[in-house]
Amino acid sequence: MSNVQYLFDLAVILFTAKLFSIIGKKFGIPEVVGEILAGLVIGSAVLGIVVESEFLRIMAELGVIMLMFEAGLGTNLQELKKSGLKATLIACSGVIVPLIMGTVLFMSFYGFDEPGSERFMRGLFLGTIMSATSVSITVAALKELGKLSETVGTTIVSAAIIDDVLGIILLTIVTGLSGQSESESVLTVLLKVVIFFAGAIATGFVVYKVMSWLDGRYSHHRRVPITSLCYCFLLAYLAETYFGIADITGAYVAGVILCNIADRDYIERRIDISSYMIFAPVFFAGIGLKTSFAAMDTRFLMFSICFVIVALVSKVIGCGICAKFMGFNTGDSLKVGTGMMTRGEVALITAQKGLLLGLLTADYFTAVILMILVSSIVTPICLKKQYSNV
Amino acid sequence: MSNVQYLFDLAVILFTAKLFSIIGKKFGIPEVVGEILAGLVIGSAVLGIVVESEFLRIMAELGVIMLMFEAGLGTNLQELKKSGLKATLIACSGVIVPLIMGTVLFMSFYGFDEPGSERFMRGLFLGTIMSATSVSITVAALKELGKLSETVGTTIVSAAIIDDVLGIILLTIVTGLSGQSESESVLTVLLKVVIFFAGAIATGFVVYKVMSWLDGRYSHHRRVPITSLCYCFLLAYLAETYFGIADITGAYVAGVILCNIADRDYIERRIDISSYMIFAPVFFAGIGLKTSFAAMDTRFLMFSICFVIVALVSKVIGCGICAKFMGFNTGDSLKVGTGMMTRGEVALITAQKGLLLGLLTADYFTAVILMILVSSIVTPICLKKQYSNV
Repeated sequence: MSNVQYLFDLAVILFTAKLFSIIGKKFGIPEVVGEILAGLVIGSAVLGIVVESEFLRIMAELGVIMLMFEAGLGTNLQELKKSGLKATLIACSGVIVPLIMGTVLFMSFYGFDEPGSERFMRGLFLGTIMSATSVSITVAALKELGKLSETVGTTIVSAAIIDDVLGIILLTIVTGLSGQSESESVLTVLLKVVIFFAGAIATGFVVYKVMSWLDGRYSHHRRVPITSLCYCFLLAYLAETYFGIADITGAYVAGVILCNIADRDYIERRIDISSYMIFAPVFFAGIGLKTSFAAMDTRFLMFSICFVIVALVSKVIGCGICAKFMGFNTGDSLKVGTGMMTRGEVALITAQKGLLLGLLTADYFTAVILMILVSSIVTPICLKKQYSNV
Repeated sequence: MSNVQYLFDLAVILFTAKLFSIIGKKFGIPEVVGEILAGLVIGSAVLGIVVESEFLRIMAELGVIMLMFEAGLGTNLQELKKSGLKATLIACSGVIVPLIMGTVLFMSFYGFDEPGSERFMRGLFLGTIMSATSVSITVAALKELGKLSETVGTTIVSAAIIDDVLGIILLTIVTGLSGQSESESVLTVLLKVVIFFAGAIATGFVVYKVMSWLDGRYSHHRRVPITSLCYCFLLAYLAETYFGIADITGAYVAGVILCNIADRDYIERRIDISSYMIFAPVFFAGIGLKTSFAAMDTRFLMFSICFVIVALVSKVIGCGICAKFMGFNTGDSLKVGTGMMTRGEVALITAQKGLLLGLLTADYFTAVILMILVSSIVTPICLKKQYSNV
């Protein structure tokens, strides 16, 4: 392999991602989906031209971090406050329903067993994997539709952020139940979450003041977007490294903190250009790139298909019905449920943990990746349909 | 180390690079120099906060590739044609003088010996390392001064490109002389160079036509800069992988091929934003990051200092005097000579090769890195002074 292989990889990814998103657009398919399909085609699933590398993985991660930072920057703080309680309840319901349905699904395939048994724990773990929303694809789809900062969009994004936190807590409880002594206590995890958000908000005021001063003095200077991006990277780093919270959540919080700055559009534009020129396509194509259909027997294929369907349906039910109770009309409730369907790397990380704990075998990775792939493709298409029906 | 260490690294690099370039500006120091110094301070030479990683190395390489692509895009084709012959002669003279002076320097320290002897070969190899210009820092400095597409700027850039090619040929000859059977023949290398440039120009016409059509149909669409960037990456990849030519030369050629496209400014702007937001600071800071002053005894320190001085002076003499003969006035000749002083990764790669061939010991790396560092800092400062004197 050449030592500049990454140049070839980037050229192929950027070109095919753009090409597929243009072709997809002609058929009314969201651009994001086109880019994911591009990754699927050039990856090991079909052509095998590009193999995922450590470098591409990091570029993809930077892509999703920039995406979430932009989502944060675009936040309407009034809307966020208004949607806070509703989003929390929707997130809770959206975690519990997939958890239960995932556990039941596992046991209907592999036999029911009493709570606490190994089989039950395996089922519960699969449910835990199902419960983790990754909202980045939805964010990209809503951005494409221009609906990101409306009530439904804000509700989805904030519910997904809360979902992320619930996911960590749930993972801690489940791994705790499975009797792993090395895992942290639920209290420690909760404490970390509280400290992170309290700390981010407290320091956020200072950061906001400093950045506003900088921006007031040097409006439309490069230093403003660059410093903002540094802050985003730093908060993402701190969240992931010291608080067990996903880096993308940290990036989103950084964006929210800066969302009222005067030069917000100027910052967002610069991040957006950097993102769409290189990082974002690598992220979207990366989802397809990871997928491989090798080593699937019929029984496991059946299970995987059911797994994906249950994963999608359970989120729509869990979040959608709760949204309806919260006073959203049926159309908007469906949008909220659909928007929460997307799964991403959090599911993979959870699965990875399950592998380490012996609660999962490696085969299940294929099912999880399939869930990520299908939900990433189906959600933007459904959202586009739902919005155009109104 | 955290698995999101790169977020921390990027945050620190971007922040300090911007900070140092702002502080530097107050003292009249070019931004580029500020960014290199930032790398020196956060790297192992001083604070040791950031350690160079494979990821940062690739980001830096992408940064310099984008920089050279921009330089190519900004080319004035008339100027390039006009400066062609002059640039070739300047490049030749700029290779020969450092080669001779480097050899003499080595032998004045370690004893003179007849041509063909081991000591002579070692000296010749050190001269070869000295002869490789890396123009990226000069490009950045000239861009900052707004002088890149003028006659002097074009001459420097094209001379440096030719210098790169001469460097490969010279390296082949020297390694051939040292009796390494595994090295390619000079003829093969020459043939590859010819095929690359002929191929790039021939396919370049087609690429230019296609891109012009795309641009005419979709002016100011994202697809134009994205496709251009793909082309740049691809040509850089092909140059490095199949023709033994530096990737940055490939990127520059790609830029030159697209330099007459209608949307050139639109493309350049997008590349420029992506570059200054992340990639370029990583490249500039990366130069400082590499540097470490550990393990230097007095004698070797003396040698290193002489090495750096001879490296700088020999390029100014070699290129400057030749430029004077070519009809440039004294001020412009000095600018050409100064602009050609910068050394970069090509010198490192050559040194690496010398290590493999046993012509060099690892100590010399420190001298080479020092040459890169000092020339990268001194050149922009001198250029700025020379231009402000006019």
